[in-house]
Amino acid sequence: MKAVKGFCVLFTLLLCFVDSGRTGKILVWPMDFSHWINLKVILEELQLRGHEITVLVPSPSLLLDHTKIPFNVEVLQLQVTKETLMEELNTVLYMSSFELPTLSWWKVLGKMVEMGKQFSKNLRRVCDSAITNKELLDRLKAAKFDICLADPLAFCGELVAELLNIPFVYSFRFSIGNIIERSCAGLPTPSSYVPGSTSGLTDNMSFVQRLKNWLLYLMNDMMFSHFMLSEWDEYYSKVLGRRTTICEIMGKAEMWLIRSYWDFEFPRPFLPNFEYVGGLHCKPAKPLPEELEEFVQSSGNDGVVVFTLGSMIQNLTEERSNLIASALAQIPQKVLWRYTGKKPATLGPNTRLFEWIPQNDLLGHPKTRAFITHGGTNGLYEAIYHGVPMVGIPLFGDQPDNIARVKAKGAAVDVDLRIMTTSSLLKALKDVINNPSYKENAMKLSRIHHDQPLKPLDRAVFWIEFVMRHKGARHLRVAAHDLTWFQYYSLDVVVFLLTCVATIIFLAKKCCLFFYRRFCKTGNKRKRE
Amino acid sequence: MKAVKGFCVLFTLLLCFVDSGRTGKILVWPMDFSHWINLKVILEELQLRGHEITVLVPSPSLLLDHTKIPFNVEVLQLQVTKETLMEELNTVLYMSSFELPTLSWWKVLGKMVEMGKQFSKNLRRVCDSAITNKELLDRLKAAKFDICLADPLAFCGELVAELLNIPFVYSFRFSIGNIIERSCAGLPTPSSYVPGSTSGLTDNMSFVQRLKNWLLYLMNDMMFSHFMLSEWDEYYSKVLGRRTTICEIMGKAEMWLIRSYWDFEFPRPFLPNFEYVGGLHCKPAKPLPEELEEFVQSSGNDGVVVFTLGSMIQNLTEERSNLIASALAQIPQKVLWRYTGKKPATLGPNTRLFEWIPQNDLLGHPKTRAFITHGGTNGLYEAIYHGVPMVGIPLFGDQPDNIARVKAKGAAVDVDLRIMTTSSLLKALKDVINNPSYKENAMKLSRIHHDQPLKPLDRAVFWIEFVMRHKGARHLRVAAHDLTWFQYYSLDVVVFLLTCVATIIFLAKKCCLFFYRRFCKTGNKRKRE
Repeated sequence: MKAVKGFCVLFTLLLCFVDSGRTGKILVWPMDFSHWINLKVILEELQLRGHEITVLVPSPSLLLDHTKIPFNVEVLQLQVTKETLMEELNTVLYMSSFELPTLSWWKVLGKMVEMGKQFSKNLRRVCDSAITNKELLDRLKAAKFDICLADPLAFCGELVAELLNIPFVYSFRFSIGNIIERSCAGLPTPSSYVPGSTSGLTDNMSFVQRLKNWLLYLMNDMMFSHFMLSEWDEYYSKVLGRRTTICEIMGKAEMWLIRSYWDFEFPRPFLPNFEYVGGLHCKPAKPLPEELEEFVQSSGNDGVVVFTLGSMIQNLTEERSNLIASALAQIPQKVLWRYTGKKPATLGPNTRLFEWIPQNDLLGHPKTRAFITHGGTNGLYEAIYHGVPMVGIPLFGDQPDNIARVKAKGAAVDVDLRIMTTSSLLKALKDVINNPSYKENAMKLSRIHHDQPLKPLDRAVFWIEFVMRHKGARHLRVAAHDLTWFQYYSLDVVVFLLTCVATIIFLAKKCCLFFYRRFCKTGNKRKRE
Repeated sequence: MKAVKGFCVLFTLLLCFVDSGRTGKILVWPMDFSHWINLKVILEELQLRGHEITVLVPSPSLLLDHTKIPFNVEVLQLQVTKETLMEELNTVLYMSSFELPTLSWWKVLGKMVEMGKQFSKNLRRVCDSAITNKELLDRLKAAKFDICLADPLAFCGELVAELLNIPFVYSFRFSIGNIIERSCAGLPTPSSYVPGSTSGLTDNMSFVQRLKNWLLYLMNDMMFSHFMLSEWDEYYSKVLGRRTTICEIMGKAEMWLIRSYWDFEFPRPFLPNFEYVGGLHCKPAKPLPEELEEFVQSSGNDGVVVFTLGSMIQNLTEERSNLIASALAQIPQKVLWRYTGKKPATLGPNTRLFEWIPQNDLLGHPKTRAFITHGGTNGLYEAIYHGVPMVGIPLFGDQPDNIARVKAKGAAVDVDLRIMTTSSLLKALKDVINNPSYKENAMKLSRIHHDQPLKPLDRAVFWIEFVMRHKGARHLRVAAHDLTWFQYYSLDVVVFLLTCVATIIFLAKKCCLFFYRRFCKTGNKRKRE
């Protein structure tokens, strides 16, 4: 096996050498947080392959620190402080995680519109800072980029690409209710078995769930186009100097790199320019730092539990953290908890708090028995990669959906942070650790993840380079883009056929009546006469 | 580059060696002609990787000669002569190629049903010979196969797999009107931009064409389920001893390996268990035999034209062959014509007839200027692989669709064999040879074909071995299989919502009337009183 590995490395190096003549210039319009963490892995690989990378970074940002980015950087100066950004984020996070699930259906819609508008305002601030900076645009034009990597949730990347007249490739997990994929990319999404994103539903739905899913798509379509997109349609039209829509520009994306794969994603229809590259950031575990290894080894046969709620949630309320700590104190496993808040009073001797943990290395450690996670795609994929069963505490965004998927595949148990009790968390933890089916199912997901024709990162890089080599990937673009929605659904054909049938029935009826009156009635009259 | 190639070979050999512990047993239910030619390439690769292959071969067959198959063979003895088979085939070929296109719409439907029934009768003959042979089935059961490779157009492979309780993988191009993929695999196929197979339409349709396509799907659905499938439903139910349908059994296919790719196929929605592996048989050209090379070189700068109508059409009428020979005689290129019929009187000195030609080696020769082809998928892919523009003379089956695709991509001109004249064929030939756009477009298709993340043959083999390793690929199977057709299209949801709306309107109307009568009318009455 060592010999094979040696040849693999040599082979890759040789390929890099052969390909080195084809390097190009890549412009990046990134999104913050987990999106950036994931995209950075692709960018590092592209840089390793000799491409020159320039990232447009808003300043201030929350996680995206332009002074620490290992690529060329163009700073987009914003008229806002980091504190304001943090405040806005916390408001949205609190609303999504705690307020929304308690509200009635109609109030949720209202809040969603409110959040959508705030989100849109933030995006517009960043977009304005690039679009109105003529000097920057001229510099970017002069640099002659080959491609733009953008994120469909961070509007404007596609607009910059359009202004620079270069092809662009998207990378993301999904939009709310999959509206961008459905409306702008033409992705067929039968509501009967493809659960709308953020619904938390599975692909096996009851009648009521299918009804809910159908309405979710409809509501999202209406809300998105009415409250959010219309102002962007105007903005894009004004900037480009012609009548257009943001959806039309988004629909020009050459490739859609989706941050999931069929290991945990429910199988669904997709298009030739969609590539499912979930888990592209995963890699084998490295040895732990000495002190951490010692703590892990001290767990003996019971092993350890890894616990983190991701990069966006820093602290919990004192009540929540005490409740959690109390449950953790009752398991025989040692617990590594990434938490920067106040130390909970109920913290057990088996639990240690960390400001940061080498999550991937811990999940890949043979002593790890379970992962308590908010269900962010990156962390979840690391657990799948290493075959670790999970206890999911989903909060917002893609998290409820992610946890619904691993739960449906039998590799996780979920608990609701808002109504969770010490005993419900303890029960979930004990189930996942002691019932071997969770580990078996996590290993099954892991085997599927590892058994792909080509690694996700290689596929992502291949298609980005393909677009650079061929100046696009038009051959993968469905003709649905050239149809209106009623043509797409053949409604004009159906209406035409119904009209024909109605006309034929009408004429047949008229003829029958005519002949009846002309001959039968006359005959009767004559008879009577 | 040589060093890289060397490493590639060494790397593949090493991988084969490492994988050798995972070899298995493969059962094959093949289909004759081009299907077999294509499948054989996959089987040879699988054999090379150490798997044991057993093919169930009907005898007599037309091209599938069980004495020449380089794998284990189980002969299915049929009560029919080879001559009868040939006669049946010729009748169907003549009907499809010459009769059908001249008939009215209704007569075509009648003929299609007739042909379908004949086709079904032939398949049933082969199926019976396997299913009723208890000794054979026991032997196959005892052999403990890991997988069955079948063809959805040669019914029964899936039934054998079901009886042996092993997973199966399909490999084919398409079914008529894509009915099997749509109805049994759950493949979404919007009629507005996915042209039904055998329609000869493109993905860019006028209103009338979309209407035609919509009706084609509907007609095929009705014809297929009514005239062909119902008897197979009964047959499968009887053999399996439970109520089932052929579609339900077909829907269990773990993978659908489709013999096309986005190089020439119109992009369309597909499912995770569909893999487009068109052109998997293509390979670099080998040097020509000396005599042939001499003939090709004698063409000088004008180059040569390669001409074949495939393995199913042996001869043409004297009138057709003379007409073709006369056109060929008028071009400056040398022509290599694969033809076993009577030598045409008008044959020019530049044209040479051959019983067989090394087609791939000729298409890969630098002197080849054009390919005159019936448009069979295998030959067409060899032309794409080598970037050779085409003159298409499609006859039946997938040929009109294939030619429509390369024509839409600007790499071919088509002529109709039935109404073709010497001058129309000559014009088509001159266009393709002298207008550089055809060569450019053929090269573009070739570049796309060669620029894939993984070669088609490797992908086909990977997924077959995946199914063997994991005893299936359930994670790629959409939940659409568990829905009825009205659930799939959410018709129950829509009907429910319409009923709700109607009830609300009805109740609101009743209430209004009630209040109107109760208060307004009473008020009026009182006023009048």
